[in-house]
Amino acid sequence: MTFRQRHLLGIEQLHPEEIKTVLDLANSYAEMNRSPTKHSDALAGLTQINMFFENSTRTQASFEIAGKRLGADVMNMAMQASSIKKGETLIDTALTLNAMHPDLLVVRHPHSGAVNLLAEKVNCAVLNAGDGKHEHPTQALLDALTIRREKGRLHRLTIAICGDIAHSRVARSNLILLGKMENRVRLVGPPTLMPSQIDQFGVEVYHDMEEGLKDADVVMMLRLQRERMDGGFIPSEREYYHRYGLDAEKLAHAKDDAIVMHPGPMNRGVEIDGTIADDINRSVIQEQVEMGVAVRMAAMDLLARNLKAERENRTEGVYV
Amino acid sequence: MTFRQRHLLGIEQLHPEEIKTVLDLANSYAEMNRSPTKHSDALAGLTQINMFFENSTRTQASFEIAGKRLGADVMNMAMQASSIKKGETLIDTALTLNAMHPDLLVVRHPHSGAVNLLAEKVNCAVLNAGDGKHEHPTQALLDALTIRREKGRLHRLTIAICGDIAHSRVARSNLILLGKMENRVRLVGPPTLMPSQIDQFGVEVYHDMEEGLKDADVVMMLRLQRERMDGGFIPSEREYYHRYGLDAEKLAHAKDDAIVMHPGPMNRGVEIDGTIADDINRSVIQEQVEMGVAVRMAAMDLLARNLKAERENRTEGVYV
Amino acid sequence: MTFRQRHLLGIEQLHPEEIKTVLDLANSYAEMNRSPTKHSDALAGLTQINMFFENSTRTQASFEIAGKRLGADVMNMAMQASSIKKGETLIDTALTLNAMHPDLLVVRHPHSGAVNLLAEKVNCAVLNAGDGKHEHPTQALLDALTIRREKGRLHRLTIAICGDIAHSRVARSNLILLGKMENRVRLVGPPTLMPSQIDQFGVEVYHDMEEGLKDADVVMMLRLQRERMDGGFIPSEREYYHRYGLDAEKLAHAKDDAIVMHPGPMNRGVEIDGTIADDINRSVIQEQVEMGVAVRMAAMDLLARNLKAERENRTEGVYV
Repeated sequence: MTFRQRHLLGIEQLHPEEIKTVLDLANSYAEMNRSPTKHSDALAGLTQINMFFENSTRTQASFEIAGKRLGADVMNMAMQASSIKKGETLIDTALTLNAMHPDLLVVRHPHSGAVNLLAEKVNCAVLNAGDGKHEHPTQALLDALTIRREKGRLHRLTIAICGDIAHSRVARSNLILLGKMENRVRLVGPPTLMPSQIDQFGVEVYHDMEEGLKDADVVMMLRLQRERMDGGFIPSEREYYHRYGLDAEKLAHAKDDAIVMHPGPMNRGVEIDGTIADDINRSVIQEQVEMGVAVRMAAMDLLARNLKAERENRTEGVYV
Repeated sequence: MTFRQRHLLGIEQLHPEEIKTVLDLANSYAEMNRSPTKHSDALAGLTQINMFFENSTRTQASFEIAGKRLGADVMNMAMQASSIKKGETLIDTALTLNAMHPDLLVVRHPHSGAVNLLAEKVNCAVLNAGDGKHEHPTQALLDALTIRREKGRLHRLTIAICGDIAHSRVARSNLILLGKMENRVRLVGPPTLMPSQIDQFGVEVYHDMEEGLKDADVVMMLRLQRERMDGGFIPSEREYYHRYGLDAEKLAHAKDDAIVMHPGPMNRGVEIDGTIADDINRSVIQEQVEMGVAVRMAAMDLLARNLKAERENRTEGVYV
Repeated sequence: MTFRQRHLLGIEQLHPEEIKTVLDLANSYAEMNRSPTKHSDALAGLTQINMFFENSTRTQASFEIAGKRLGADVMNMAMQASSIKKGETLIDTALTLNAMHPDLLVVRHPHSGAVNLLAEKVNCAVLNAGDGKHEHPTQALLDALTIRREKGRLHRLTIAICGDIAHSRVARSNLILLGKMENRVRLVGPPTLMPSQIDQFGVEVYHDMEEGLKDADVVMMLRLQRERMDGGFIPSEREYYHRYGLDAEKLAHAKDDAIVMHPGPMNRGVEIDGTIADDINRSVIQEQVEMGVAVRMAAMDLLARNLKAERENRTEGVYV
């Protein structure tokens, strides 16, 4: 069991063995979450602060439930209504929180890199819950766990990530993780919604859904992020659905046992047909949410163990 | 002791014996809430989610305190700021939460029937905290407990429910409950604020306060729900107070020991005179709030016991 | 150890011995907060409600963390979104909460005196988290603890409180506390930002920073409260910084080992130069935040002990 991180800032920093460690522990927490009494003391006596500079009911709820089930003292900071309105800088806000001695700081921020910057300034473990177009590591980890449970493995799979790639930190974290685990990753979407630099990731790019989905094991749909499209091309929903929305006809090109994923919240009839989203034989969308809580419990537990080891100054035991 | 419900959606579904079970247990929780250390482990290890699609500080606070005092992991979802703004449907939101394995889901929603619909989609116990003009069962139960404590019984009483009946789920749940317990229920208010179909409930209707309050044991005032009056007749506050506001003169027509109730928040000088609201010999308004916490503790405890029995598959023990 | 208060409404009511009691206990909680497991059961079984009628992320967070670390059931009331919008009076809101049997009620309110009024109506212990321009006692206590830790004593010090004195409850509570402990307090700022009646406090008034800071042991900067300046003179930020903003040149007039304080959130470049705020040899701003949690833990612990003694009716033991 290997997990040498002080923070969980991105998939980029993780070794494949560390990813495996998180998923294995998350799997056991997933069992606990299905049991009648779903509470442990793994984080008892620790303080977790959720600092969301962007609204996200489901991700914040997932982290909050994860922390409370592990016995942490959990606090949500409504950063919209906060001191940042009074002109305080991000760093001042971070230093203020840091002085209250939190152990785990969960941060979502609209600017790429803001969470990494913040992590340099504080003494606690920082978890990135999404920063701009950069990373969303717990989303990639929960997707990976869902795939592994459904497919029995997390390597040598053909995975099509479809839709609005350009604005998606979910896509970015996923393609890094899936690449590290030696899968074949395809990006499928209109040229206008592709990131400008994608060669570095060693992925295949398709602009046609039928070609892109051919023989795929996993079809991962993305949310059309209209709120992040500033000034550029915005497709009509009808046209978008016609060409890139997942329906039965397009899905028929994937493998017979291909699974369908979506990070939520869904735009039914825009990027995905409602019937497919609800098809329990194909769609694993609810399982993704379920694994989200488990993955966050595992990540916070592992970071708290490292923090404890560091504080006890057992240099030989910094790594679990 | 009988309580066979999987959810608490309305008073309509409850048998008089079940109502008695809730009130008896609530009474003992009311004692606990008055003791120096007010905390038990009845819901320890369980997850309670409060999902309020309408603002309600006092009802949400009451459910939150109730859950925390019973040791549950409690989470509030601010549904205004949530995914529903991103176009997610109510059902998708419910399924997402359900995948996080809550045990108790407390829901308030502006549309009648929305909570029942939601209950069909989830695996946990659902408590209706008010849906449109439909039901508000915990309010009726807390009113019943207050009456029983004050009057020594909950049957053969004459109870006048006064004011804006048409827009009130509180009135609706109350008249169902009070009817089931064999009380004489009167509705008192202007014709424009009476529901269109009231014959089914077997109640008496009065448009004059003096007649309606004559010899009443209980005078239950309602809040004038201006926010729910769309397009129709809106009375001036002054005129309304003159004819339907509870003052000493009108109250003199009720029994000498009649109690005065109000679900809060009050419009002083609109539906009730401030002096009467504050008269500790007549007004039981604070006791209603106090019993609210106790009733919610009892309801969640009973639902959690049934959930536990169901999960342990002891078919003979599904009912406590 | 002496602490005879039922509420913590202001510094005005506190005897120097009581201040010392709070600071001593807070010091031990500060140690706990720096330890790996920062949780006790001092408030277990008690209910703490935070009622903020004014937004204040940092003060509310500080009280919330304090209560959770002591094992209380903590609830935040978002009073902006609450019943007060529906026309409910402050007293009705207070009575409603009181009926839910909280033990500790933390209140911030924009009107001076509102918290005292509320304390008369409830059965629990009330903590003033800031009321209008009146008092902010936990801020003064955390400032005092920070000074005592840094200077080794809390008497016979020269302390310059600088800036927008007129609108500052922080200044008011601080000058009362520092006066009680026999320090030499100076108020430094433009005449337009001085309170009209200051003679009663026995302080020295300066309108020039260099004179006011001369040989000071402590330089306490205040936030420019533009949001509270209604109609009167509002200085330009540039002019204000030039004359009253703390920079290295002005600070050179204080003692060589003078410490710099600020209650936050800071307007960098308005009332204080960023370099000085970040200078770990002079600035104790982070320590103020840290001591804030500790002081609130101590205050709530002491009030809860008195409440317990009162409830157990041990008249000889009302005072700890």
